[in-house]
Amino acid sequence: MATAPSVSYSMTVRLEVPASGTAVSQLTTAVESSGGSVTGLDVTASGHEKLRIDVTIAASSTAHADEIVEELRGIEGVTLGKVSDRTFLMHLGGKIEMQSKHPIRNRDDLSMVYTPGVARVCMAIAENPEDARRLTIKRNSVAVVTDGSAVLGLGNIGPKAALPVMEGKAALFKRFAGIDAWPLCLDTQDTDAIVEIVKAIAPGFAGINLEDISAPRCFEIEARLREALDIPVFHDDQHGTAIVVLAALTNALRVVGKGIGDVRVVMSGAGAAGTAILKLLLAAGVKHAVVADIHGVVHAGREDLASSAADTEQGSQLRWIADNTNPEGVTGTLKQAVVGADVFIGVSAPNVLGGDDVAAMADDAIVFALANPDPEVDPAIARETAAVVATGRSDFPNQINNVLVFPGVFRGLLDAQSRTVNTEMMLAAATALADVVTEDELNPNYIIPSVFNDKVAGAVAGAVRGAAKAAGAAVTGTTA
Amino acid sequence: MATAPSVSYSMTVRLEVPASGTAVSQLTTAVESSGGSVTGLDVTASGHEKLRIDVTIAASSTAHADEIVEELRGIEGVTLGKVSDRTFLMHLGGKIEMQSKHPIRNRDDLSMVYTPGVARVCMAIAENPEDARRLTIKRNSVAVVTDGSAVLGLGNIGPKAALPVMEGKAALFKRFAGIDAWPLCLDTQDTDAIVEIVKAIAPGFAGINLEDISAPRCFEIEARLREALDIPVFHDDQHGTAIVVLAALTNALRVVGKGIGDVRVVMSGAGAAGTAILKLLLAAGVKHAVVADIHGVVHAGREDLASSAADTEQGSQLRWIADNTNPEGVTGTLKQAVVGADVFIGVSAPNVLGGDDVAAMADDAIVFALANPDPEVDPAIARETAAVVATGRSDFPNQINNVLVFPGVFRGLLDAQSRTVNTEMMLAAATALADVVTEDELNPNYIIPSVFNDKVAGAVAGAVRGAAKAAGAAVTGTTA
Repeated sequence: MATAPSVSYSMTVRLEVPASGTAVSQLTTAVESSGGSVTGLDVTASGHEKLRIDVTIAASSTAHADEIVEELRGIEGVTLGKVSDRTFLMHLGGKIEMQSKHPIRNRDDLSMVYTPGVARVCMAIAENPEDARRLTIKRNSVAVVTDGSAVLGLGNIGPKAALPVMEGKAALFKRFAGIDAWPLCLDTQDTDAIVEIVKAIAPGFAGINLEDISAPRCFEIEARLREALDIPVFHDDQHGTAIVVLAALTNALRVVGKGIGDVRVVMSGAGAAGTAILKLLLAAGVKHAVVADIHGVVHAGREDLASSAADTEQGSQLRWIADNTNPEGVTGTLKQAVVGADVFIGVSAPNVLGGDDVAAMADDAIVFALANPDPEVDPAIARETAAVVATGRSDFPNQINNVLVFPGVFRGLLDAQSRTVNTEMMLAAATALADVVTEDELNPNYIIPSVFNDKVAGAVAGAVRGAAKAAGAAVTGTTA
Repeated sequence: MATAPSVSYSMTVRLEVPASGTAVSQLTTAVESSGGSVTGLDVTASGHEKLRIDVTIAASSTAHADEIVEELRGIEGVTLGKVSDRTFLMHLGGKIEMQSKHPIRNRDDLSMVYTPGVARVCMAIAENPEDARRLTIKRNSVAVVTDGSAVLGLGNIGPKAALPVMEGKAALFKRFAGIDAWPLCLDTQDTDAIVEIVKAIAPGFAGINLEDISAPRCFEIEARLREALDIPVFHDDQHGTAIVVLAALTNALRVVGKGIGDVRVVMSGAGAAGTAILKLLLAAGVKHAVVADIHGVVHAGREDLASSAADTEQGSQLRWIADNTNPEGVTGTLKQAVVGADVFIGVSAPNVLGGDDVAAMADDAIVFALANPDPEVDPAIARETAAVVATGRSDFPNQINNVLVFPGVFRGLLDAQSRTVNTEMMLAAATALADVVTEDELNPNYIIPSVFNDKVAGAVAGAVRGAAKAAGAAVTGTTA
């Protein structure tokens, strides 16, 4: 599973080379023979003796980029200048900014945007607090909240190091759904403190997107905030993932012609994403589910489900899984559980299954190997026997990517002025996302649309808005 | 002190009038005779029988606007349509938004702005947390934090009703200093909670602007946050006001030819702004200051300064004032104290002084009557005997407006990557602001520049940046 050169490891190298001779062609050859890819070559200065060239190169990792630079350094007559990492250049000074919607050109503008005119708007909201949804940014604002405890696959790297991800998330909210999101990276990992902080900052936002908060704390934080707040609280790592997985599974089942109530589903991973996926699949009609974690299949007899261990948040999650899955009382390892299974969904760790495990699944097996960057099983090998394979990676077909979901979900919630988000809205979002893929388009390599499919966000938003209104969770118009 | 029509009470009224006859001219006459001002008259539809006209009108208050509308309704043949308040229209959906700095057009963009590329940036910050100032929005972001307890002169109207002010503040940060500010309106007024919340959200910001938090809680909140955080914490209602007042006083003293160490200063108001002004004036060299609050002149013998009362935050503020002012042990009322004074500074309540009180001050008296919207003394009457008069209002000369200060102060702090803000930086800001008014421009009606003077923010920022670096409070370059 060699990784291809990617623009996410792209650099621009400034070089001086002799104007005559073969140095320029040697550059390209050196990059290609090192496994890199030249994506741009610009001569930025030229003279009789020397050329200055900026070469933009895609590598497959940081170490690979370093190797390529060393190759270039070795070419006779070449002087190496500045090496610029394009991803880092894009992050200089941050990726998002605040903009005023109105120009403030003169005293008249100032007296309406700020004092004294603003006082009348304040008083209108003081008299009718729901007017905040009409007269302020609250209408369209989402707080992207993290404590930096489980950032991407990087672990507990803290709030400052989490900020680039949250900025990226905010940028995606705007790009795909026109939502104004602002990152709040919290310098605490205490559950009570996080709940109190998010409750306190809620007045200025119409929704809370929790992000990259580790399990099991994320379950309690989300549950308590949903109870306390009159705006929807959505932990994207859980529910965003769950919605995309359900949409993809819906279409994969269409491909193989199996019914969601009939298939045997085996999951690997009982963390935040795994638990949310499980709950949504059960709500969507899955009847035969088995979950395995690092200790093997979760069943009622497992030692870590004894009452003392189950007092912890993690223990109570496992207890919930044991109570709601595995009706046949399967025990043993993950590898044992997948034998004869129709569907495997992994949100766990790299390479927990081999090609032989996939081959031992039922006919027309469906494999979602979502661990990032390295899946639970090599998708190319899985594809040899499975009918449908999906991963979290952008360099294979069928990428399970939360970007397909969270912008549209929040757009729908905000448009409906919903005070909550519930399972019906998430099911509606998954159905809408699945339906973006038409019958004519559907095939084993296209069960889920691309993130740049411009129908996605609108379809998801419409479904969520409708479900919110149907649920009576929405309050609209002058009473809102 | 009749108030002139202002665009901050501007409305657009849609009317249908007969196409023939005098109805149109009657409209203008009706507005003018009601004391309003027609600022625009657009025919938006025309027929043989009827005209549809949008008339834009400046009124002097909401009640006045209502009166004018009633006058228009009374004109023969006129049908009144929708009345639109221009200030409210400007607030629909909020005044600020979040923007992405980079387009996200395709997979390559996505892989740099978000996953997988962003992971490398996160790891760089995890390894060197100070890189957050280079690679994230932290570098240029300020949190505008309020609890809605003392909003403008409107009182404790709560966090949602405070939001329009905070949005306006954010818009001004951008307009005058290119700073990305985001409002956080907190749903708590508990001092401990506010301190914990602001500490927790600090990682994503390079500065904290506290706003409209009532005294005396604001003193403790600010002091504790300054102690706890490695970014500057600035309560604009205190220090912004203090810096503009000191700048204006510096120039007013130039006008009358008196020295700051020689003048007798009498202040009315011992709240957040009053206390901050007093402290900065003392730091700037004022030696003879007397402060009065609602109970009269603050002196060591006052009952509410007895040890039991002084245990409260408010009591300890008054004790500090008694210990650091009034060396002559003046007692009695404000009116008694101003007799013979060189400078009066009011940050208290309307009409606490009359023309006779100003007349009883020393020759070449300076009067800053800053209560809003109604000053401590009618500035027109004060001007009859005082040499220099300033107010907080935009319809008199010499407006004392914080907009002159907070954008430049934060620009300087952010540029210096300062971890704190101290008295030296505030004194430098005041001097720089005063010096924007040249010797040739200086006169009794121009002691402070306009908020739209484009030299102001840069001058203040440069002075603060210099003071921050001189103080060693700034950490720059690779060690930052």
